[in-house]
Amino acid sequence: MGNTFGKAFSITTWGESHGPAIGVVIDGCPPGLELTETDIQLELDRRRPGQSEISTPRQEEDRVEILSGVFEGKTTGTPIAMQVRNKDADSSKYDIIKNMPRPGHADYTYQMKYGIRDHRGGGRSSARETIGRVAGGAVAKKILERHGIEILAHVVELGGIKASPVQVDEIKANVESNPVRCADPEAAKTMLERVKQAREDKDSIGGIVEILALGVPPGLGEPVFDKLDCDLAGALMGIGAVKGVEIGSGFASAAMTGSQMNDPFEMRNGKVVCSTNNAGGILGGISNGEIIVCRIAVKPTPSIARSQKTVDMSDLSETNITIEGRHDPTIPPRIVPVAEAMTALVLADHLIRAQSYTK
Amino acid sequence: MGNTFGKAFSITTWGESHGPAIGVVIDGCPPGLELTETDIQLELDRRRPGQSEISTPRQEEDRVEILSGVFEGKTTGTPIAMQVRNKDADSSKYDIIKNMPRPGHADYTYQMKYGIRDHRGGGRSSARETIGRVAGGAVAKKILERHGIEILAHVVELGGIKASPVQVDEIKANVESNPVRCADPEAAKTMLERVKQAREDKDSIGGIVEILALGVPPGLGEPVFDKLDCDLAGALMGIGAVKGVEIGSGFASAAMTGSQMNDPFEMRNGKVVCSTNNAGGILGGISNGEIIVCRIAVKPTPSIARSQKTVDMSDLSETNITIEGRHDPTIPPRIVPVAEAMTALVLADHLIRAQSYTK
Amino acid sequence: MGNTFGKAFSITTWGESHGPAIGVVIDGCPPGLELTETDIQLELDRRRPGQSEISTPRQEEDRVEILSGVFEGKTTGTPIAMQVRNKDADSSKYDIIKNMPRPGHADYTYQMKYGIRDHRGGGRSSARETIGRVAGGAVAKKILERHGIEILAHVVELGGIKASPVQVDEIKANVESNPVRCADPEAAKTMLERVKQAREDKDSIGGIVEILALGVPPGLGEPVFDKLDCDLAGALMGIGAVKGVEIGSGFASAAMTGSQMNDPFEMRNGKVVCSTNNAGGILGGISNGEIIVCRIAVKPTPSIARSQKTVDMSDLSETNITIEGRHDPTIPPRIVPVAEAMTALVLADHLIRAQSYTK
Amino acid sequence: MGNTFGKAFSITTWGESHGPAIGVVIDGCPPGLELTETDIQLELDRRRPGQSEISTPRQEEDRVEILSGVFEGKTTGTPIAMQVRNKDADSSKYDIIKNMPRPGHADYTYQMKYGIRDHRGGGRSSARETIGRVAGGAVAKKILERHGIEILAHVVELGGIKASPVQVDEIKANVESNPVRCADPEAAKTMLERVKQAREDKDSIGGIVEILALGVPPGLGEPVFDKLDCDLAGALMGIGAVKGVEIGSGFASAAMTGSQMNDPFEMRNGKVVCSTNNAGGILGGISNGEIIVCRIAVKPTPSIARSQKTVDMSDLSETNITIEGRHDPTIPPRIVPVAEAMTALVLADHLIRAQSYTK
Repeated sequence: MGNTFGKAFSITTWGESHGPAIGVVIDGCPPGLELTETDIQLELDRRRPGQSEISTPRQEEDRVEILSGVFEGKTTGTPIAMQVRNKDADSSKYDIIKNMPRPGHADYTYQMKYGIRDHRGGGRSSARETIGRVAGGAVAKKILERHGIEILAHVVELGGIKASPVQVDEIKANVESNPVRCADPEAAKTMLERVKQAREDKDSIGGIVEILALGVPPGLGEPVFDKLDCDLAGALMGIGAVKGVEIGSGFASAAMTGSQMNDPFEMRNGKVVCSTNNAGGILGGISNGEIIVCRIAVKPTPSIARSQKTVDMSDLSETNITIEGRHDPTIPPRIVPVAEAMTALVLADHLIRAQSYTK
Repeated sequence: MGNTFGKAFSITTWGESHGPAIGVVIDGCPPGLELTETDIQLELDRRRPGQSEISTPRQEEDRVEILSGVFEGKTTGTPIAMQVRNKDADSSKYDIIKNMPRPGHADYTYQMKYGIRDHRGGGRSSARETIGRVAGGAVAKKILERHGIEILAHVVELGGIKASPVQVDEIKANVESNPVRCADPEAAKTMLERVKQAREDKDSIGGIVEILALGVPPGLGEPVFDKLDCDLAGALMGIGAVKGVEIGSGFASAAMTGSQMNDPFEMRNGKVVCSTNNAGGILGGISNGEIIVCRIAVKPTPSIARSQKTVDMSDLSETNITIEGRHDPTIPPRIVPVAEAMTALVLADHLIRAQSYTK
Repeated sequence: MGNTFGKAFSITTWGESHGPAIGVVIDGCPPGLELTETDIQLELDRRRPGQSEISTPRQEEDRVEILSGVFEGKTTGTPIAMQVRNKDADSSKYDIIKNMPRPGHADYTYQMKYGIRDHRGGGRSSARETIGRVAGGAVAKKILERHGIEILAHVVELGGIKASPVQVDEIKANVESNPVRCADPEAAKTMLERVKQAREDKDSIGGIVEILALGVPPGLGEPVFDKLDCDLAGALMGIGAVKGVEIGSGFASAAMTGSQMNDPFEMRNGKVVCSTNNAGGILGGISNGEIIVCRIAVKPTPSIARSQKTVDMSDLSETNITIEGRHDPTIPPRIVPVAEAMTALVLADHLIRAQSYTK
Repeated sequence: MGNTFGKAFSITTWGESHGPAIGVVIDGCPPGLELTETDIQLELDRRRPGQSEISTPRQEEDRVEILSGVFEGKTTGTPIAMQVRNKDADSSKYDIIKNMPRPGHADYTYQMKYGIRDHRGGGRSSARETIGRVAGGAVAKKILERHGIEILAHVVELGGIKASPVQVDEIKANVESNPVRCADPEAAKTMLERVKQAREDKDSIGGIVEILALGVPPGLGEPVFDKLDCDLAGALMGIGAVKGVEIGSGFASAAMTGSQMNDPFEMRNGKVVCSTNNAGGILGGISNGEIIVCRIAVKPTPSIARSQKTVDMSDLSETNITIEGRHDPTIPPRIVPVAEAMTALVLADHLIRAQSYTK
């Protein structure tokens, strides 16, 4: 279980890395929304590997096909099924991991949970699973767009190198102009060097991605267990390699005083606003009309070209494993569209849920 | 909506700070579990304010009553309803916040979401709501106990003061022996001074709480959206004042390399274990048999005795508010039992879900 | 599990017949609805036994108390908890059924499922559980009322005696004027005689209840698994003693031809309507604007004063049981408010869900 | 919403009659179950039209493809996605129903609910949607088989002609040997004549299908809202054309007395059993170990070759419609595998849920 996300707007993803295909079924999409395969493809192309010198050179095409729920270019309110065929790939190189779990990967835990697993390319735990999320998120973004809500993500730290604080406009302008998806061009250059060095070291590096949601009206979020920050935290923590989530001032709040942390209310252009945004746009689990700000900690890529200690599960002997193939030496730049997708899914779900409060 | 948590073992909480009562309904508790009101009261007493010199001096008795689901001292598999009567309290002191939202509180967002709210003592957004969570968590802990699982939480940072790393035994021995619930006795003293100073400054401080789950078997967690870390992140982020959640190395992972981060597998006493625990006991969203480690960032108490800027919603004029009454100058020590409860609820839910994988 | 009903407007019921109390928690009630304990009490009084010469003479007071979710006479959007205290009752007369399951009751199946049960008065499987449903349904009715939707139920067959077809006005006028809740006064008299005779025979009789929903707009119901008729069928079948549910022409449809069954569309007062209503107001699982018509088959009361064959579970010997106490010789009249409540809950849930389709 | 069925074992169906494909995603299938496309195809072939002289002569191939969740012939515990490509069909013949809703069909209600619909072949409301249900049910049947549970359905009434009562063995032997799927060979002949006559009359007929579940252990079903009979009633009522559901003695119970209806308990071969089975295998919403017996009322096919009154939605004028193409003059024989599938889905879901009660 656990392959469905969302209550009023939901996605159900399916598929393994080396199975016939990967896909998603969206339920709860409002009818009458203009939707084409191009809308989806644009986001999938941002997710796709092989786009830059630092991502895996595998050439995956990942052409999406919409199979239901759209008629004459518009959604009909019925489920939208989408899928991407996997390329026939030689999976013999994965034979080694059948019995030897890779450190930092889900091989061991899937085996312990299910007693059986499709080990090829990580099977269901492969990053290819995010194709379904990104496709679903693309539809969520289109819904949000109708309500003036926009989602942006960018890399703010990579391999220990921190970007300078940036304005929203800079993110829009810069984030897709460099391979590390950092909105600070200077930091981006240093980050890129750091990534190349990591690859040379047969190692990998982690980083931090920030996600912003602009234009979210006050009132989204359902206390007390479906708070907006609960759902964002759960959604973002569930992306592979994410080990931490924070909202607004996040972990820095722990060292602040109340008089520093509290965002005062004031009037601006006839509207109630906050003078600061330490809360990150959410108070008591409900959006307050400010920009929603999340940051996620992304661990270094677990697949590294060095020999690592592991156990051969067939005879419980200690051994070493060296993972073949070429892998991204860092994940945060590629997580950007996935984090946007998960954020969009949470917000679209809550937007639709909130519509029931009108009467 | 959003007042129910859990899929196979769930709690539904209800009640406002100054309403007649606060309560919880548990569904999915296995039959045959020994359960008395004392089991619940013990945890509620840990949560209750007025226990130490640094918590609010309000004397709340918070006597729990079990109303269903238990027969001759054992659970029957039917819903367990529990409630705590609220004391009649003078709520006139809250008149001021009816129209003036307190910075850092949920007053403004509840008003924007629902158009109406019980403003007395924060109503539904009051920390008193956690009575239901702690009562539910007490039952979850009893279920976990039968499977050898134990939950521990302790304060690891308060007002910028960091505790030294401690062993599990030290946590068990020390955490309840000082009012800040810090397992490092030296740090606890400094933290206590820091709390007192904050109160003197009419201010408040935040901190970090760490939660450990011991004895969790491998295999709990449902990929891809109900991962164990998704559910823990959502559960913990939903506790009032929490602004960040991390698992294992968490945000520190962002600056690590893959060769540092990956936990090698090795054999110990005939079992596959990890040499290190940077993953915090969870790989691919599934428990791996190691100790589960979470940390949460807790913001400083938003109620401070200083004048703060706000807006009078009745005429949209800017004004100032000074919150009366005495409030805890810091939340982390009191969040400890709540964080344990939420962690226990997540694990009991996943434990029961995992039992369906046997055939 | 299974004690929560509804997705956007839900109730969670709890409590056993001879436990301390019985109650319900409503989640998803729109804010700003005027609600008092009197609104609830009116419906509970209709459900209460001891109201007429043919129902059990037990004098249950069943005073409801609202414990949360209402502030200054209006709902706030937070959970509404309500409860009714059970009277202290001598439960020694139930000792006999501890090991001897009563034919037609849930004693045996609860014991087999849970391995333990509160046998007193049937415990959780008692008809007293419907207090929570009726209290929840009373709130649902108030929501529906704001949208011009009204729910009516009446007994159309009792002990084999069929009422003549009646108009909606006759139901409103007559149903509460006789103890069998039949809108045909002539049939009501004969039915009443039949009930008395059954009691004299130490036996019991069944019947059929019809439920109408007036004023339901077209468009409620979610294909393909949450169809309006799916949810109505599930909700009504789940009332104790119900063994069948039909919509519109129901089982009679099986012997009709398409040309008889199909309801032609026509224009009336500028609106599209159906010339007939064999569909019972639902097509493809979605309301079509006509009156929704359901009928439920209610089995005879299983508690009869005759000796019946059963098994002593303590030694697996065959034996006989005679159930003491006085019991209603027929259930349909008392099921009327419960069936209305369940229908109201389904419609309120779907009404709120449908509001998300506006944008 | 509403396209997902089941809580611990669920299916999500998608697809329209004339879209690119129809499919299903199964979540919660236990790992290690042997599964091939042939297992699914066998059931789909039973569902497929064009198999006999009385079903539509359209030659649909309906080849299923498994796209995920199966590795080396066994399920892995991850979602199983399956799909069937739709044949390119000329949909111009459906132009007439774009604005003119067919009586007895969902055209009008879909249009009112969504404001837009894929009208071709009924779109989402087409009987082709049941491909996903039958594919999902085929997997459910394999799970049930491991637990010794078998599902059988047969036509017991057609066009007013009732079959004689039959034994389980006769159903197994006879049901697939005649085109009306009736286990009484004599009645089957008369029914077949009745079907042919209906077609000649340009009309259609309804009937009743009985579904049996053999080998269900006591203890399945979750009181009070997820009772086994609630879920069966909802599942079966949701099949297109079904207008009534009854369990055990069903509507006949209404005219019985308690002493007739109650099933006495007795010992047989060392086990507690019921002497009769008026309850249809379910007491208090929980299986009691007897055969589960459901019957569904199926209305006559709404598509008939006669002119029928309807309204042109484009100008709200009254008009007449004659539906082209050839349609099954009766649905019950083809509903048999669908009803089996829905019953299997309910039981597999409850079987898995019940496994959590072991500790």
